Amino acid sequence: MNIKLVISILGIIVFFIGVAMLLSLPFSLYYSDSSLLPILGSSILCIVIGILTWFFLKTPEIEVNPREAFAIVTFAWLAMSLFGSIPYVVSGAIPSFTDAFFETVSGFTTTGASILTNVEALPKGLLFWRSMTQWLGGMGIILLSLAILPILGVGGMQLFKAESPGPTVDKIKPRIGETAKVLWQVYVMFTFVQTLLLLLGGMNIFDALSHSFTTMATGGFSTRNLSIAHYNSPYIDTVIIVFMFIAGANFVLHYKALKGDVREYFKNNEFVFYLSIVLISIFISVLLLINSGNYNSFTSALRYSAFQVVSIITTTGYSTADYEIWPYSIQFILLILMFIGGCAGSTAGGIKNMRILILLKNGNAELRKLIHPKAIVPVRYNNRTVPQDIINNILAFFVLFVTTFVVATIIMTILGMDIISAMGAVIASLSNIGPGLGSVGPMDNYSNIHFLGKWILSFCMIIGRLELFTALVIFTKVYWKV
Amino acid sequence: MNIKLVISILGIIVFFIGVAMLLSLPFSLYYSDSSLLPILGSSILCIVIGILTWFFLKTPEIEVNPREAFAIVTFAWLAMSLFGSIPYVVSGAIPSFTDAFFETVSGFTTTGASILTNVEALPKGLLFWRSMTQWLGGMGIILLSLAILPILGVGGMQLFKAESPGPTVDKIKPRIGETAKVLWQVYVMFTFVQTLLLLLGGMNIFDALSHSFTTMATGGFSTRNLSIAHYNSPYIDTVIIVFMFIAGANFVLHYKALKGDVREYFKNNEFVFYLSIVLISIFISVLLLINSGNYNSFTSALRYSAFQVVSIITTTGYSTADYEIWPYSIQFILLILMFIGGCAGSTAGGIKNMRILILLKNGNAELRKLIHPKAIVPVRYNNRTVPQDIINNILAFFVLFVTTFVVATIIMTILGMDIISAMGAVIASLSNIGPGLGSVGPMDNYSNIHFLGKWILSFCMIIGRLELFTALVIFTKVYWKV
Repeated sequence: MNIKLVISILGIIVFFIGVAMLLSLPFSLYYSDSSLLPILGSSILCIVIGILTWFFLKTPEIEVNPREAFAIVTFAWLAMSLFGSIPYVVSGAIPSFTDAFFETVSGFTTTGASILTNVEALPKGLLFWRSMTQWLGGMGIILLSLAILPILGVGGMQLFKAESPGPTVDKIKPRIGETAKVLWQVYVMFTFVQTLLLLLGGMNIFDALSHSFTTMATGGFSTRNLSIAHYNSPYIDTVIIVFMFIAGANFVLHYKALKGDVREYFKNNEFVFYLSIVLISIFISVLLLINSGNYNSFTSALRYSAFQVVSIITTTGYSTADYEIWPYSIQFILLILMFIGGCAGSTAGGIKNMRILILLKNGNAELRKLIHPKAIVPVRYNNRTVPQDIINNILAFFVLFVTTFVVATIIMTILGMDIISAMGAVIASLSNIGPGLGSVGPMDNYSNIHFLGKWILSFCMIIGRLELFTALVIFTKVYWKV
Repeated sequence: MNIKLVISILGIIVFFIGVAMLLSLPFSLYYSDSSLLPILGSSILCIVIGILTWFFLKTPEIEVNPREAFAIVTFAWLAMSLFGSIPYVVSGAIPSFTDAFFETVSGFTTTGASILTNVEALPKGLLFWRSMTQWLGGMGIILLSLAILPILGVGGMQLFKAESPGPTVDKIKPRIGETAKVLWQVYVMFTFVQTLLLLLGGMNIFDALSHSFTTMATGGFSTRNLSIAHYNSPYIDTVIIVFMFIAGANFVLHYKALKGDVREYFKNNEFVFYLSIVLISIFISVLLLINSGNYNSFTSALRYSAFQVVSIITTTGYSTADYEIWPYSIQFILLILMFIGGCAGSTAGGIKNMRILILLKNGNAELRKLIHPKAIVPVRYNNRTVPQDIINNILAFFVLFVTTFVVATIIMTILGMDIISAMGAVIASLSNIGPGLGSVGPMDNYSNIHFLGKWILSFCMIIGRLELFTALVIFTKVYWKV
């Protein structure tokens, strides 16, 4: 493995993190808060380290093999989180390094789990940086899931090879660049439109931009202690529901729709499945909420259940209601949605609807084979037969996901959490959601977790975000064998 | 489908259930309890119905196709439970039919979940019948899992085709008959030895026989309200731990060992995996129990953790301690063991170690493939490459298992159970364990569950026992298409 190459690319990433920090400065200046110098200092530090690293280590050769690609992707998220946490620490806003790192990992992985008990006490400049970590993380994920992972053959993402837009040149570099450019345009455009709509709803520009950043990234960091409940506005709830739903769908479909082909949504098996799960979950929750008497009117039940269902399945993690006082049945349904997550090729986390759908189709095919043992019953997805190696790949992803969930939950219970809270915290991290259940529910935060637990959860956020394989492969023997 | 053929075979089964009931009569007589006439009457009823059904419907043709086989197996467990519940109802010991059916399903599926609040109040004859339902269910499962399901191609059980003992004649009937005979001999022999050992420990013949019946079946029905804790004897605990462990291992291996080849155990990947999980779980629990202060001495911690771990992983469900007052971490580990279950080809339920092992091996193979995309990395099990269609089969089993668990848990929470209790009750039924967590923990019972919930859980016990596919295939469209 060419370690110099890997580190030099990490240097470029650290450089850009430094540049991105500068974008928070206007808000530091406008609100003349205490974060101006800490952010400026952190930014310069990142820029200098980035430039020096790249300058001294850059290699003429830029062909990247799979081993190096896995290292670059994994350590990129680690480096972003490490350098991105500097402003929190030097400003004194989050004095503990563990906490600052947790908060930054939670940002770049678009998770949204927070150790802050009083978000509004943070200087506005830092708060904006916090939202921006999620927005940048979201960009990273779009690039990763639609351009890089399909080439690396991770967990069924190969299915996208044929789907991606842009010139289908066979060489890797132009494909990645072109794909990124096109999809980021869509991402920026949606962020812009949402910001406008939130401004129309009465948010100030700071809140509107911050929330659009964290909605499109399905991140869920809010600038308000009460999250979206702060605004108590049906209009704002609706705008955010719609944009969370969009952010949880495949960006390739959005690209095609913007090119004029809106029917593509309904020709896509995953999108239809995702939409169905959302609608069915809302429908059941509304019935259960009215039956339990939590809400008297159908409108309220619909408003709050739609928000919570979409927020959880898209792994955003905003809240407008405390679902922990809702019936157990809804809580359990939300727990299952936490595992499912959004669509592949979105900014959402979780197992992803595509994989769930293919697993269910395989189950159905096997049932058919019992009756017709000699029949060939292919698993079809988007009118193509899913190749066997992709099914194995998806199976492996599912098993790794469940195994990671189990092992991490065991560790969290050993650290003293009860079972529901531990399961909630782990799945909320692994699926990059934010709020979980029990002591890390939507009205709680992660500040009281054992410091070792914070590291375990940070680890879960990163490997969850990188579709497990990408990060876990580095821990295998075969990776280190020459 | 030849419905007459299916029903005539069910008639034979009902006949044998009637004959089996007669075996409880000696205890009814000896203890001169009130169950004599009810059992005798029920027995005669079953025998008459069985004979008439068979006599009027018997067909000269006895070739069974897969469709008919699935129907026979599924309805056999249903018919056994239906007719087996008659003694409870007519004696008035369990007046509600729902409860009597639940108790009998729990018996024949070797689950051990009970709606009885005071077991010791039951007449001895009925209590013996209750234990015997499990022992007969255990026999049925050995036959099913080692002789019938491999032929039907259910959930990876095809792996046993080559492993089964007896003459490898290709025709189905002689194979099934021979396999059954050989393995039942092993089953009866172990039951006999355990009964002797329990008698030596001071149990009376009634208790010794009843507990041996329900140990070898990994059933877990006890004749005592306090289950095995009643005896408070380290010797009895040890005997039962050993025999639960045996009953949770593949009976083909026992057969080979009894033929003199004890090394076969350690050449078998599944057995080694099962043993490792048991030892590691006991080791971790002992550490956690001593750390938490639940037990002062290492010996006590070992005794109680070994019993509970083996009882849960083998899906027996006896208890000698209330693990609900143990640390959350142990409870969560036990919850995971509930999913894993025993070995394929044993009387235990659950996903089975074989499937877990193959799923993990596939995960590992996929990680290797990321680094060497062009390499062929086969999944090997017992020194053979696992064919691709078996991996798909196992994947489908896993997905169906998880899906059934999720759907049933949602229903139980809608019926008002909290999440932990609902998850506990469903997995305890689906994996045929008995006690779960929360309100259905080892010191509780199933009497207070909503009556609809009892039917859902009965359904889970049956489909769990029949390795899901066997029962669920009947609900598919393709099954009913001619």
